[in-house]
Amino acid sequence: MAGNTWGKLFTVSTFGESHGVGLGAVVDGCPAGIELSCEDIQQALDRRRPGTSRYTTQRQEPDQVEILSGVFEGRTTGTPIGLLIRNQDQRSQDYSAIKQQFRPGHADYTYQKKYGIRDYRGGGRSSARETAMRVAAGAIAAKVLAQQGISIRAALTQMGSVVAPVKDWSAVNGNAFFCANPDAVEPMDALIRELKKQGDSVGARIYVEACGVPVGWGEPVFDRLDADIAKALMSINAAKAVAVGDGFDVVTQRGSEHRDEMTIEGFQSNHAGGVLGGISTGQTVNAEVAFKPTSSISIPGKTITTEGEAVDIVTKGRHDPCVGIRAVPIVEAMMALVLVDHFLRDRGQNAGVQRS
Amino acid sequence: MAGNTWGKLFTVSTFGESHGVGLGAVVDGCPAGIELSCEDIQQALDRRRPGTSRYTTQRQEPDQVEILSGVFEGRTTGTPIGLLIRNQDQRSQDYSAIKQQFRPGHADYTYQKKYGIRDYRGGGRSSARETAMRVAAGAIAAKVLAQQGISIRAALTQMGSVVAPVKDWSAVNGNAFFCANPDAVEPMDALIRELKKQGDSVGARIYVEACGVPVGWGEPVFDRLDADIAKALMSINAAKAVAVGDGFDVVTQRGSEHRDEMTIEGFQSNHAGGVLGGISTGQTVNAEVAFKPTSSISIPGKTITTEGEAVDIVTKGRHDPCVGIRAVPIVEAMMALVLVDHFLRDRGQNAGVQRS
Amino acid sequence: MAGNTWGKLFTVSTFGESHGVGLGAVVDGCPAGIELSCEDIQQALDRRRPGTSRYTTQRQEPDQVEILSGVFEGRTTGTPIGLLIRNQDQRSQDYSAIKQQFRPGHADYTYQKKYGIRDYRGGGRSSARETAMRVAAGAIAAKVLAQQGISIRAALTQMGSVVAPVKDWSAVNGNAFFCANPDAVEPMDALIRELKKQGDSVGARIYVEACGVPVGWGEPVFDRLDADIAKALMSINAAKAVAVGDGFDVVTQRGSEHRDEMTIEGFQSNHAGGVLGGISTGQTVNAEVAFKPTSSISIPGKTITTEGEAVDIVTKGRHDPCVGIRAVPIVEAMMALVLVDHFLRDRGQNAGVQRS
Amino acid sequence: MAGNTWGKLFTVSTFGESHGVGLGAVVDGCPAGIELSCEDIQQALDRRRPGTSRYTTQRQEPDQVEILSGVFEGRTTGTPIGLLIRNQDQRSQDYSAIKQQFRPGHADYTYQKKYGIRDYRGGGRSSARETAMRVAAGAIAAKVLAQQGISIRAALTQMGSVVAPVKDWSAVNGNAFFCANPDAVEPMDALIRELKKQGDSVGARIYVEACGVPVGWGEPVFDRLDADIAKALMSINAAKAVAVGDGFDVVTQRGSEHRDEMTIEGFQSNHAGGVLGGISTGQTVNAEVAFKPTSSISIPGKTITTEGEAVDIVTKGRHDPCVGIRAVPIVEAMMALVLVDHFLRDRGQNAGVQRS
Repeated sequence: MAGNTWGKLFTVSTFGESHGVGLGAVVDGCPAGIELSCEDIQQALDRRRPGTSRYTTQRQEPDQVEILSGVFEGRTTGTPIGLLIRNQDQRSQDYSAIKQQFRPGHADYTYQKKYGIRDYRGGGRSSARETAMRVAAGAIAAKVLAQQGISIRAALTQMGSVVAPVKDWSAVNGNAFFCANPDAVEPMDALIRELKKQGDSVGARIYVEACGVPVGWGEPVFDRLDADIAKALMSINAAKAVAVGDGFDVVTQRGSEHRDEMTIEGFQSNHAGGVLGGISTGQTVNAEVAFKPTSSISIPGKTITTEGEAVDIVTKGRHDPCVGIRAVPIVEAMMALVLVDHFLRDRGQNAGVQRS
Repeated sequence: MAGNTWGKLFTVSTFGESHGVGLGAVVDGCPAGIELSCEDIQQALDRRRPGTSRYTTQRQEPDQVEILSGVFEGRTTGTPIGLLIRNQDQRSQDYSAIKQQFRPGHADYTYQKKYGIRDYRGGGRSSARETAMRVAAGAIAAKVLAQQGISIRAALTQMGSVVAPVKDWSAVNGNAFFCANPDAVEPMDALIRELKKQGDSVGARIYVEACGVPVGWGEPVFDRLDADIAKALMSINAAKAVAVGDGFDVVTQRGSEHRDEMTIEGFQSNHAGGVLGGISTGQTVNAEVAFKPTSSISIPGKTITTEGEAVDIVTKGRHDPCVGIRAVPIVEAMMALVLVDHFLRDRGQNAGVQRS
Repeated sequence: MAGNTWGKLFTVSTFGESHGVGLGAVVDGCPAGIELSCEDIQQALDRRRPGTSRYTTQRQEPDQVEILSGVFEGRTTGTPIGLLIRNQDQRSQDYSAIKQQFRPGHADYTYQKKYGIRDYRGGGRSSARETAMRVAAGAIAAKVLAQQGISIRAALTQMGSVVAPVKDWSAVNGNAFFCANPDAVEPMDALIRELKKQGDSVGARIYVEACGVPVGWGEPVFDRLDADIAKALMSINAAKAVAVGDGFDVVTQRGSEHRDEMTIEGFQSNHAGGVLGGISTGQTVNAEVAFKPTSSISIPGKTITTEGEAVDIVTKGRHDPCVGIRAVPIVEAMMALVLVDHFLRDRGQNAGVQRS
Repeated sequence: MAGNTWGKLFTVSTFGESHGVGLGAVVDGCPAGIELSCEDIQQALDRRRPGTSRYTTQRQEPDQVEILSGVFEGRTTGTPIGLLIRNQDQRSQDYSAIKQQFRPGHADYTYQKKYGIRDYRGGGRSSARETAMRVAAGAIAAKVLAQQGISIRAALTQMGSVVAPVKDWSAVNGNAFFCANPDAVEPMDALIRELKKQGDSVGARIYVEACGVPVGWGEPVFDRLDADIAKALMSINAAKAVAVGDGFDVVTQRGSEHRDEMTIEGFQSNHAGGVLGGISTGQTVNAEVAFKPTSSISIPGKTITTEGEAVDIVTKGRHDPCVGIRAVPIVEAMMALVLVDHFLRDRGQNAGVQRS
């Protein structure tokens, strides 16, 4: 069973390679009657697309999405929504050098071994370019969730040693780092310039939260809401760790401190991150995810060829010194996909339950 | 879609409540011809079962597993394996007090709201007692994996502020904490005694690794090996964070440091944790998971009743001051379930690919 | 992926062999709050159980079902329902003779080749005894459907050349053949006696209908309601053909005859069997299924041994001359499982749509 | 859970409407290294496409397929294969008349009620035009199966009262009816001309067989090979009945006649249709399927409007008097999709079993 489908009720099946014809998806199970236009999706795509700033890859892709089906007279029909973005600025020639080399930190080696063949151009299917379709599908999910009063937002909260706790959500789209902390923009900018000079890269941390999620979403014991969030965020390229609520800090917490007490006003704290027993509590659902530093750097590295010979490799091309930056809209999209799926799953089994 | 099934090819569907008739599972998709006896499973269960030491809940459960089907003349037949453990020491009377109260940090509130009804006895389905079946199924998975030369081991590497990096794997089963670091046993023991005195609890961190995993397992782009590990570990009761390889440390790493270079001898490091692009690299696969402090403590806490009235609650009963301890065999089991499923999935699609 | 689970939202995972410890199931996704007792399930099981009449196998099995989980204080809790029937009258000695022979018309050969091992006792997993769990799960589904005003009924409408069109539904449980046509009972009885004398067997046809199904259930384009009915009925042991509505008669019909016209009173006919485009129309949903003659007969037959040698085989043991008879409650159960699953699936995606 | 995905390991997710932008699919789980070109798929598409003869709809669609991903340098890469056909000859104006009328025998009414909205142009998603993607995906499946020595072929064996048992497979592509019986071509031609004159339509029966299927495919107890064939064929537009092997004829057969005896030369007959206990026997797998007469006819029929008013309707447009004719390549495609999925499923669980 190949793994290119996300979700159980609201499913997203994606396809496409970095330097192939394009990227696409089938979004199945979307409720009917939702207003949906290309612009809704395009807006989300524009936030993640390459070439938007000097901090991210200079590949120029308009990433113009086309809705191929499932929308009629401006509304979803309940039938599958086909999406397509054609690749434009592919420059395959940049990549011919790596045809026979496994770039360290990349999936070149594992794809080659798994399938016995790989599209080496720009990483093929393993390229982060694949995430464009996550963002597109996430935009549809977000529209469904908005009808339920749910909004999702994410921000870069750390880049290397520059920590940027959320201070001001309104700042996120006003800087090139999706940073909710204006004070951190200048140090981040300095760090990126330094990395470019060094030909190196750095990791990042992203915080995401969903407001308005009602109590009751999540399907224990395996398909818990937090478990699916963990999978969703860890499935993003370069992700290495996921935390819900207080995350790894719980290791040193006491039970008397961690457990979120309740009064008639509701929960008195949210150490849990809005999930208890795998089911949403009605509080804000939040999580964090860590992204490794970009593997494509210009500092030479040791690797082997497909023939098994040792070589030094320098990854040319147009790469981000910090892949985490552009991951912000992707993290939001994955959170939206998790939530919309659990919304429908819960509704299927429990539509009749009174929760107020 | 309820969420009580794990896996795509090697599936485990569990059932059972803490104080009901018992716990059970259907393991479907296990290859035929594997030697399997009750003892194989019992051995694993005995490691996690309650009442084994003064550090964990004093509930006395023999947890005797019965194989109901799928095994004939000592070997699996390829048909589903039914498993059952009957509950013995249930003492339901202990729990009648919480019938109308939502214990803070527990799933009482979320189950009640989701389903409109809950088995309040000992947490019902949300009890960690459910994990007995994960361990039982994991023991079967481990036998399949052993045939492929794969072994899995986990250890408690931190309890509260007592850090216990892996030093000596042979020590794990020699202490009550599943700790691979003899020096940490005494401080951990002291901490537990202090917590018992205070009626409080503490969190924990567990490290797990799988040795012998070949290159090629994992199904990008969503069902990556690391994404499924993240989900599997986060689906365990009380888990709040999961890391693969260097985890959150990647945030401050440079690309030149993190990327694992290769020579003709193989990878020169394993910052990735044995996974690149969601596919195993052939190195040791490793992960970490954080468990929150036990929510059932004897320090009074604020909560509300099912009628919406404010009350103070003291959780009586027999509880672990650190739920993370007993999670060690569960973490191993979940890792086994992830790997065996990906073994079969990869074999289904790629059985013909030469990888040597 | 093994195939022992039915359904997407209301799932049934079964296990167990004819002569093993017993038969069991996990029913996951059942809505909470449904009244459910062992008696509800037992009633359904009693209709299919062996030993009820001289027309069916004389194996004596009380088939006493035990609910292991998922029900609390008489109501379902939304958590998985574990079910178990222990085998009693197994008489494994009857079957030792066939250990090394492949009974013609049975699955002995295919199980042996597929898995390299088989539980030869009474057919092991391939025995129709497995269907007890379908009936048990179907009884739970029927309770959910009853709340929606849906009832399901089936009848034997043909045995060999004895045709018995539905005349009087009230007669079904008053005869040993589940026949809704009192006039056919005597000829069927005569046929069975003749077959017993000859040591032979005969096929059968069953008609099933579901009344009260609202418009809108079924998930095109692949998971159509009629497609899932076809799979469900064909998945029953010995089934060889399935028809919905007019079935194979449509081959010679004209469009002007077949299409069900509508007036303000509703549909004027029901050639379609209550399904258009894979979605229920609001009319009665009906289907037919054909069962092959019992393969276990006392007339000697040619076969080979597991060593590849030719032998003549006589199937001893306690067998029905017409397996179709006992299939009636199983057919009802599978129809219930299809409908309840589609009820929840439709509700998940389309709960908000006004249909009146 | 919407139902637009077929398969468990080799999955096909389709999208697209009759008069929308086009039709597409994602084929996931295809083994890597299979030679695949547009021509391979186009060849199959050309057999089913409209406008090929006067016997079928006169809509002119080149149905030019584009491979969007998953193929590199002429071979599959193991990553998802995206497919797209853009609609050309849509003539939406033909359909505006039916915007507010539910055509009898069509899915207009059920889609409207299920989703509260429908793309009424040419039936939208419910149009048989959707099946183009089944044929395209089936062509890929057929290439995988060909490597295993399996070939699939189907033929129209009855149209109305004109019966055409298979006589000569080489004739199938030499007549406009996909008929393997040259004697039947003239009577079929006469029947079609008569129907055109009357403005009426007629049903059809198709026979399909797969040669070379090895013993061991199929996943009891629910995902039996024959059960999945039943679902696959019943999921095709206008299908109303499915039979495997002797089908409904088994009702009147005796066990001594039906059971396929074995000698050291193998099975002596194939009443079972190549499946026992839901697992392939190694013989030819065969099935039959009945298609209802085209619902779009020019004889006026009674229906209601979306406002609930009674009207007479005449379906204009370009329609086949016998939809069954063009179903022949679709039936082959669905058989291929069933088989390839079971090939991979069996290989996943049982790759190590010796079957010779």
